[in-house]
Amino acid sequence: MEAHMLAWKRFVEPSDRVRILEIVLSTGAFSEEEADIAVELVDERLAHGGDSGYEFLLAEAEGRLAGYTCFGRVPGTLSSFDLYWIVVAPERQRKGVGGLLLMETERAAREKGATRIYADTSSSPGYEAARRFYEACGYRREAFLPDFYRPGDGKVIYARVLTRNLPDGENS
Amino acid sequence: MEAHMLAWKRFVEPSDRVRILEIVLSTGAFSEEEADIAVELVDERLAHGGDSGYEFLLAEAEGRLAGYTCFGRVPGTLSSFDLYWIVVAPERQRKGVGGLLLMETERAAREKGATRIYADTSSSPGYEAARRFYEACGYRREAFLPDFYRPGDGKVIYARVLTRNLPDGENS
Repeated sequence: MEAHMLAWKRFVEPSDRVRILEIVLSTGAFSEEEADIAVELVDERLAHGGDSGYEFLLAEAEGRLAGYTCFGRVPGTLSSFDLYWIVVAPERQRKGVGGLLLMETERAAREKGATRIYADTSSSPGYEAARRFYEACGYRREAFLPDFYRPGDGKVIYARVLTRNLPDGENS
Repeated sequence: MEAHMLAWKRFVEPSDRVRILEIVLSTGAFSEEEADIAVELVDERLAHGGDSGYEFLLAEAEGRLAGYTCFGRVPGTLSSFDLYWIVVAPERQRKGVGGLLLMETERAAREKGATRIYADTSSSPGYEAARRFYEACGYRREAFLPDFYRPGDGKVIYARVLTRNLPDGENS
């Protein structure tokens, strides 16, 4: 997948609710409880706008949702952002969409004042690809909480310090 | 303060909203943004009951709120609980109320299936008493995220593994 094939949308509309539910469920990686949470965050954003603390970035390809992220400043922090969700549609996986999504998310977060981004993931074997993805994208394994999700399944907290300067040509 | 002087209440009522706001603000330890969040969690509990994911424990002494905790299972985890709030009224501080609150909270969490409790606090000098408190109560410093709250002010994540057996006479 080439970057120019993706169209970016930095907001959610009511019609994105079901698209986001579908893409989350289609990966097979999330429980129903987790999918409910994903949609709740959309609802929070639709109901409360920026005050919700949830920002969205959607990547579309050929009119369909190729992936999305949900992120936002962690309440009580000056400029630490959390990547709450990053999901790529199964048919778009292993084509670089995840890396582009993460880069665009970092750009959007930086524009909103972010200096750090955190991403949590599981230490279980099923999430090895996720961990490798974050490491390949410049994220550092900042902390590990053993048995966090369940016995034998810990939480890995990745962090990336965002550079103060935007890439060439984007300073304004 | 002796334990028998405290009356425990394991729920919130609409009238607790303002009592909780008052106690949070009276400590001088929390920003207005943080106090708003404390009240939002009460509202969430009042609106959605147990589905909110927020449990409350209130300690009253002589009819007044001496302290409270807000805690709950972390979504997506089997049995990890987060201690979202623990607040002791200024006039009740340094009298053992915090330790009793934490013990009663652990008991309530264990009854709801908790096997671990996490508590976040700041690494800044102003929170040294909080860190000593958790350490004295058997919490282990599980992770440290530098610069999390702001430059120079990191997040310390404390954790306590809850014993499977309840104290004598409480097994049922």
